[in-house]
Amino acid sequence: MIALNHTHDASARSWLASANAAGGDFPIQNLPHAVFRRAGHSEPFRGGIAIGDQVLDLAALAARPLLEGLALDAARAAALPALNDFFALGGRAWQALRHAVFALLRDDAPAATVEALRQCLVPQAEVEYTVPARIGDYTDFYTSIDHALNISRLMNPDGDVTPNFRWIPTAYHGRVSTIGVSGQRFHRPMGQTLAPGAKAPTFHACARLDYELELGIWIGAGNAAGAPIPLAQAEDHIFGICLLNDWSARDIQFWEMAPLGPFLAKNFATTISPWIVTMEALAPYRLPWTRPAAEPQPLAYLEDPGNREGGAIDIRLEVWLESEQARRGGHGASRLSRTSFRHQYWSVAQMVAHHTVGGCQLNPGDLFGSGTISGPGPGEAGAIIELTRAAQSPVTLSHGERRGFLEDGDAVLLRGWCEKPGHARIGFGESRGTVLPAIG
Amino acid sequence: MIALNHTHDASARSWLASANAAGGDFPIQNLPHAVFRRAGHSEPFRGGIAIGDQVLDLAALAARPLLEGLALDAARAAALPALNDFFALGGRAWQALRHAVFALLRDDAPAATVEALRQCLVPQAEVEYTVPARIGDYTDFYTSIDHALNISRLMNPDGDVTPNFRWIPTAYHGRVSTIGVSGQRFHRPMGQTLAPGAKAPTFHACARLDYELELGIWIGAGNAAGAPIPLAQAEDHIFGICLLNDWSARDIQFWEMAPLGPFLAKNFATTISPWIVTMEALAPYRLPWTRPAAEPQPLAYLEDPGNREGGAIDIRLEVWLESEQARRGGHGASRLSRTSFRHQYWSVAQMVAHHTVGGCQLNPGDLFGSGTISGPGPGEAGAIIELTRAAQSPVTLSHGERRGFLEDGDAVLLRGWCEKPGHARIGFGESRGTVLPAIG
Repeated sequence: MIALNHTHDASARSWLASANAAGGDFPIQNLPHAVFRRAGHSEPFRGGIAIGDQVLDLAALAARPLLEGLALDAARAAALPALNDFFALGGRAWQALRHAVFALLRDDAPAATVEALRQCLVPQAEVEYTVPARIGDYTDFYTSIDHALNISRLMNPDGDVTPNFRWIPTAYHGRVSTIGVSGQRFHRPMGQTLAPGAKAPTFHACARLDYELELGIWIGAGNAAGAPIPLAQAEDHIFGICLLNDWSARDIQFWEMAPLGPFLAKNFATTISPWIVTMEALAPYRLPWTRPAAEPQPLAYLEDPGNREGGAIDIRLEVWLESEQARRGGHGASRLSRTSFRHQYWSVAQMVAHHTVGGCQLNPGDLFGSGTISGPGPGEAGAIIELTRAAQSPVTLSHGERRGFLEDGDAVLLRGWCEKPGHARIGFGESRGTVLPAIG
Repeated sequence: MIALNHTHDASARSWLASANAAGGDFPIQNLPHAVFRRAGHSEPFRGGIAIGDQVLDLAALAARPLLEGLALDAARAAALPALNDFFALGGRAWQALRHAVFALLRDDAPAATVEALRQCLVPQAEVEYTVPARIGDYTDFYTSIDHALNISRLMNPDGDVTPNFRWIPTAYHGRVSTIGVSGQRFHRPMGQTLAPGAKAPTFHACARLDYELELGIWIGAGNAAGAPIPLAQAEDHIFGICLLNDWSARDIQFWEMAPLGPFLAKNFATTISPWIVTMEALAPYRLPWTRPAAEPQPLAYLEDPGNREGGAIDIRLEVWLESEQARRGGHGASRLSRTSFRHQYWSVAQMVAHHTVGGCQLNPGDLFGSGTISGPGPGEAGAIIELTRAAQSPVTLSHGERRGFLEDGDAVLLRGWCEKPGHARIGFGESRGTVLPAIG
């Protein structure tokens, strides 16, 4: 487990007032990474760190005599338009930069440092983001038993998960080319579906468009092909976590997925939040990873005292829907669900260990989706098909509109944060994606 | 359809004698692309074209005053250590380079040209290859009905394919990071499997290791997200074809694949041949794509007169196995099967049209696997699980060894070529991969 250190001191404050605002996502204890540029400018994208309502421009920082040694090397890599080289540097470099930036932003920094730093800040309100790394491979997991059970019970009220679910952190390979950053807008997909009782499929616009609330897990240092990463070392290979929306066309998925899994149902768009919260920042929010005694206990390669001690993470998550009518009427978005990542059946470390146990190579900048995150209670489901029982029980938005599945113009917003007494609140910012009409 | 032109003239011969050898893979009518360097040298990889037993070094060629205009631009892009930029240039540029190189290598080239060209040749026996492009996404299809039926009938003698097979060119996303070029050696994967009748899985080395005979289809120019490629234009987006071995761990696959498809069973290694045969070179070997009247006819977006006229390609294919015992004893490899790509249920154009119909973006350098290629007759199966009926009827190698599945030390060789009277033989070279013992 990552030990807590001075960068987790909840009493630490920044000389930047907005970083100290109650309920903010980006206090000095967070320091997530993204790739950004001023919106509407043709300037190059470069890496930055969020602090309060500002972005610390790492290219500007690295050009000033404020860093040295490993922290400077790390800042130069983290300033590039893709973070792969920074990811490849590994935990010592990530930590060196985090600790140096923490010291520079802390309220006891010298006045001359503060003056220099102010010249490296860009207001978040003025920037646009891009996908923060060249993603070599994207893997989507399926690790929430509540999600799996909810889906199974749509078909059969006594349904259970497939027998392998309790033994394998199930995953499939996903599509890299259509991963976009928050703000992504995509057309409702066309595709084949089979109507109930029909003998032949028809081709039309997806009628059962859904979102999936997930987290994105960014791989830092990779492994060689044929050299599995043991569970005890798995977290050394994870840089951090963002929000991820795995848009899903349920009617297309239902018809296409046997026997090789979802394809066109998932590959038209995937939306991630721009900020990557580091595993180091999340350290205060680790929880024991437990498996009820009635459930099968993991095979040896998925079992480790460190994972038992702190494999879970209490990341609070919410899904909000903003319809076009709400936007026009000024009603704002409606919250559809809230849950926590703490309920996940498999941990992120187990995902890494399983992914590599057969020899598969991970590279810096690979991305995992956690799989849909649904909690055990009502209103904790991470997809609308679960919330509405496939449109049988539509949800009502705050201004009265109803939804069974998503409609054109709907924007789905994911939000995430960690908080508990005695620790600084750590926020993930937002992932926002909008459904455009099908191109027929 | 691509029209035949003077580069298909079967009577054309090269001033390089080895290019005119009967039964050779690389006559002047072929001119496939690869990325290579002299083996054992630290020199950079660069692009080349095969001619006879030589590689035409395109970096050396582009540095000499032998090309101009679009052909020179294309040669510079095709000389890079990854062919993505060349692929992105599109068909006019590919053809300009092909036609210019054809003229330079033809036996009526001026003596001074021949002298200059000789300085650009590197013997194939002295080079090593690498994966010829940065593969953004790899998609593996499932488009041979004979393969699908063979697998289904292992479970049930009266079994049929899943209902969607006859409507959808089925596909799933595969793993990019472990794609290697011919010569790849990989360790037998470890993984979970469920023994017959067992309640819980166990973890051990794969006991049912298999190959899959496939072709790799390289995407040239891509499309924008949300802008499907119509079937009639699909082939404009394909640069060419190589051999591809989709190694498969059947016991791991059987346990893991419901409901989201194969994952660890396939992502430990995929081997491709280094040479990409262009669609232009394959033009003489196009055949009508037919669908028996008793079968469902395709939906409109998968139906087009051009595809009916020439959507199939008669690429002859063979699988050979060279065991360690055969290697040590000098016995040579044994042929396991032979078939043709002409039998495929879905065409490569249909793969492109289906892949993009929901809005998915293809990029230059994306790779498709055709799916296992099995023909209708005995001995035409593209995987050992089909040939041996899952080891119930082992095959006997030429020196007497038997195989149900692959053993450590086995090398699997894929070979492919096109030939017919009145046309030059077009070869694909070889894809070779070797199984190393598991790391336990």
